[in-house]
Amino acid sequence: MFSEQDKEFMQQAISLAAKGRFTTSPNPNVGCVIVKDGNIVGQGYHQKAGEGHAEVHALKMAGDKALGATAYVTLEPCSHYGRTPPCAKGLIDAGVSRVVAAMVDPNPEVAGRGLRMLEEAGIETASGLYEQAARDLNPGFLTRMETGLPYISCKLAASLDGKTALKNGESKWITSSAARQDVQFLRAEHCAVLSGADTVLFDDAKLNVRLSAEQLELAEGMSVRQPIRVIIDSQNRLSPDLALFSINSPIIILRTKADTTHQWPEHVTELVVDSMNDKVDIKKALMQLTAYGINSVFVEAGATLAGKFHELNLIDNYILYLAPKIMGQDARGLFNVPELTQMADVQSLQWHDIKQVGDDIRLTACKVAQKG
Amino acid sequence: MFSEQDKEFMQQAISLAAKGRFTTSPNPNVGCVIVKDGNIVGQGYHQKAGEGHAEVHALKMAGDKALGATAYVTLEPCSHYGRTPPCAKGLIDAGVSRVVAAMVDPNPEVAGRGLRMLEEAGIETASGLYEQAARDLNPGFLTRMETGLPYISCKLAASLDGKTALKNGESKWITSSAARQDVQFLRAEHCAVLSGADTVLFDDAKLNVRLSAEQLELAEGMSVRQPIRVIIDSQNRLSPDLALFSINSPIIILRTKADTTHQWPEHVTELVVDSMNDKVDIKKALMQLTAYGINSVFVEAGATLAGKFHELNLIDNYILYLAPKIMGQDARGLFNVPELTQMADVQSLQWHDIKQVGDDIRLTACKVAQKG
Repeated sequence: MFSEQDKEFMQQAISLAAKGRFTTSPNPNVGCVIVKDGNIVGQGYHQKAGEGHAEVHALKMAGDKALGATAYVTLEPCSHYGRTPPCAKGLIDAGVSRVVAAMVDPNPEVAGRGLRMLEEAGIETASGLYEQAARDLNPGFLTRMETGLPYISCKLAASLDGKTALKNGESKWITSSAARQDVQFLRAEHCAVLSGADTVLFDDAKLNVRLSAEQLELAEGMSVRQPIRVIIDSQNRLSPDLALFSINSPIIILRTKADTTHQWPEHVTELVVDSMNDKVDIKKALMQLTAYGINSVFVEAGATLAGKFHELNLIDNYILYLAPKIMGQDARGLFNVPELTQMADVQSLQWHDIKQVGDDIRLTACKVAQKG
Repeated sequence: MFSEQDKEFMQQAISLAAKGRFTTSPNPNVGCVIVKDGNIVGQGYHQKAGEGHAEVHALKMAGDKALGATAYVTLEPCSHYGRTPPCAKGLIDAGVSRVVAAMVDPNPEVAGRGLRMLEEAGIETASGLYEQAARDLNPGFLTRMETGLPYISCKLAASLDGKTALKNGESKWITSSAARQDVQFLRAEHCAVLSGADTVLFDDAKLNVRLSAEQLELAEGMSVRQPIRVIIDSQNRLSPDLALFSINSPIIILRTKADTTHQWPEHVTELVVDSMNDKVDIKKALMQLTAYGINSVFVEAGATLAGKFHELNLIDNYILYLAPKIMGQDARGLFNVPELTQMADVQSLQWHDIKQVGDDIRLTACKVAQKG
């Protein structure tokens, strides 16, 4: 069904889509390439929510040449009036004769209607070309659309024997500075960075994105958005004088009860959410976060909170920086979860990626089954 | 000093040397290529202790063509009469005009004398070409020659969070069958496999090499020697009815006092060694093992013995099979060592190799400093 030419141009559309990865949140990354007589006559990608979709940019560049052309899009063209008119209509009006989509849009407002609208206008359509690569562009958007929950990455750093700190809490530093800098990129790729009050109080962490000069160069001029910082503070222990709040970008504090003690700056939103045993009900809180445009969450937390996320089967993506060090059995571990008594109860993940970062190794493992 | 041609032929000699890696113990792996007018006229490698050295095979193949040729050897030709006459003499007698060695032989019986003997006979010599690759052929032999201790590899298998068994001891299976099979090759590459009485009693382990059909094929017809099995039994808890002893290949039991209870089969050697706090003094025992032709030891043990080896700074090579699983903080850890209170006291290793094996990842890390 798909020719070599189809494959080549879809790969190009996927590369284009990736250029928006630090900025389109909460919208998906989408790329579009318009081809006539074997030549690209238009191309574009979605840069920022509220601005033109990929198809709009590509059609604008193609102009009259779109007539009779083939459009390659990494996501089914939208069929609904949002902040912009439907892209399916734009493609029809421009007179393209064929549309190839990498995947159908799981957004219930689209969900096949975009392709149908094209077909009804007599345009040939196809979908499913490089679908996995297209899915990989938008884990957050897709997870939210498909499960109602954000996509959760959990970042951890440990010694070769799985230890995150000495027994006395000392942990500076287990991993190399290159690994700690690598984390900045991962933060930037998520809609939100989430941590617990413990971590914020212990480290006086800012949790914002601080790219190095080298990383800015790698980002090739893409503007980098500061992710929303989300802090779970079940016991209202945070105060506005912490370094976290000195950075003027959005923060959401998740609480079990209102904080009547402090005055909070404007960039801080306090959310009182359902509780469970006096703690924030994490799953319900995550569902609420999607309303704030949060499709993906980068969890940077200690063993208690990371363990809770794991126990609730909420982590889609485990990212472990492993340092070539041995800290011994008295040092602190990675996940505080209830004791397991049978190997059959141990959850299996799947390795996704291995990469050397400075003196350390970054291992990425994904959940095998669907979010339950 | 070294030409492109030198490099090419030395690489060939190194490849040849590797063919002996399951059989030459306790001798080093050595390869030799003899080149005349740009053509290989003779080649060989050391196959088995007591049989011909690499140079002998290569010279035999070259015959008269060795006259005026260049010999490439991965280790300095020997200068002493052992079970075979000195190879330096063989090269002189054959009339080669140049000898290139990858490295000088650290064996105190050679240590430069081989090259000197050649030079005194008017033969041009050079050494140091691909020295690191040549060293990598013989970590055991070189470590023993340079430190008096065998080269120690310590194999471990754990979940992503560094756990080797559930709290109740269950551990079947953390890693995939592919990883467990991979271990067979590593056993075969070492002179000895070492474990503790605990492991032998708990698992009724045989600790012999059991290559799969596929692995035998990979071994390309090389005969595979059974490594000597060494068991530390400080409290004389082993008995001859264990599965370990049913396999008729050499076993050494390290004890702190003689066992007067059992009759042991002939393939079992009981060694009473020095003790420290009623336990086998590991470092002294390892030194004694070299007398049994043990240059390299593959340690397969639990957290106590592995921790002891680590604490004594004896491990040259840490091999960790990491399964994409999470077992939680109550599960058992990798290394029982005394508590550390400062990050500065944590020993840093260096990643050496990363490889996917079945569903797992095999990480290899080496000691940075010299054995102390």
